[in-house]
Amino acid sequence: MKLYDHPGFPNPRRVRIFLAEKGIQVPTETIDVPAGEHQRPAYLKKNPSGLIPALETDSGEVIAESASICRYLEEVHPQPALMGETALQKASIDMWHRRIENQLFNPLGSYFHHSTDGLGDNRYRNAAWGNHNRDQALKELKSLDLLLAQKPFISGDQFSVADITALCAVDLGVALGLFNVEDFQYLHEWHSRVSTRPSAAA
Amino acid sequence: MKLYDHPGFPNPRRVRIFLAEKGIQVPTETIDVPAGEHQRPAYLKKNPSGLIPALETDSGEVIAESASICRYLEEVHPQPALMGETALQKASIDMWHRRIENQLFNPLGSYFHHSTDGLGDNRYRNAAWGNHNRDQALKELKSLDLLLAQKPFISGDQFSVADITALCAVDLGVALGLFNVEDFQYLHEWHSRVSTRPSAAA
Repeated sequence: MKLYDHPGFPNPRRVRIFLAEKGIQVPTETIDVPAGEHQRPAYLKKNPSGLIPALETDSGEVIAESASICRYLEEVHPQPALMGETALQKASIDMWHRRIENQLFNPLGSYFHHSTDGLGDNRYRNAAWGNHNRDQALKELKSLDLLLAQKPFISGDQFSVADITALCAVDLGVALGLFNVEDFQYLHEWHSRVSTRPSAAA
Repeated sequence: MKLYDHPGFPNPRRVRIFLAEKGIQVPTETIDVPAGEHQRPAYLKKNPSGLIPALETDSGEVIAESASICRYLEEVHPQPALMGETALQKASIDMWHRRIENQLFNPLGSYFHHSTDGLGDNRYRNAAWGNHNRDQALKELKSLDLLLAQKPFISGDQFSVADITALCAVDLGVALGLFNVEDFQYLHEWHSRVSTRPSAAA
């Protein structure tokens, strides 16, 4: 396998942490996104969506979308389970993962791309939309703080892919200067729990 | 099991078609969304996100998010498989499903909520954002038309959950008057294939 990657970007980090939790080592190739390499024919031939990360399997298939790459890795390396084992766990973790994506991770990305200089590319920008997303993400942090007062991890007692995406989102929000984790008691405790796992350095 | 539902809405339709493909009959309860029933304590106690659809399991757990409900149903009723059987199929269908959600289904929903009267509720509106999403969805239809020139279903040779979400999206776009399926040769043929399955009436 091979991971098309970019250091410092939140989406590939989700996959790198997932791989580290599984104990899987995979060679990576950095795609120079700021230089536009993701939009050049050589990469588009691999991944027509032009996004990173992407995972090339040993048989040469390319899977895009961070969560779909995690699905593949979970299937080929089931332990430790990060996406649930029973039907209810699988559905519940999927639900929490989607909520973290839709209410926190993607809104922070929208703020970055619409209301800041973002990657400096010429994509469509709508600052009001970006600011609305920032406000939505900050609201979600308060909900998560209440949630994490009641359980150690996003989906319950077990660390899961939802915690990985939440960690990447929270660290992005802090890097963008939008909040301090110390401002949220239970979120802060959770952040310490997940950040001290060796995988967080991935 | 019990499905919290609303006739005519695209998201619950995704789950109803999924159930019909599996041959599972589940009692439904309509939540009167236009009257605000989804935001009242009785429903919020079941599903704190206040969204429909939601599935209540026989043990009283409530799963929200259409795709997560489908994940649960796939696990408890594996056949016919609608989310893949091998690791690569599961990841690939998940990837295509997310692309359909992100590039077609959600953009059409954003157009509806931001650039039309939508549900007539007092949510935040940004017409420029809605129109940008409409344009993105129309662009995606052209990509899908090219894709469906090469394979019978969204993710390849097999009908999957990605086709279900795509069907609900396309029918929403037509209902909103944004396009005619007849304008796209291969998409039109695909639409006929999936619309004539008995599940499409769900």
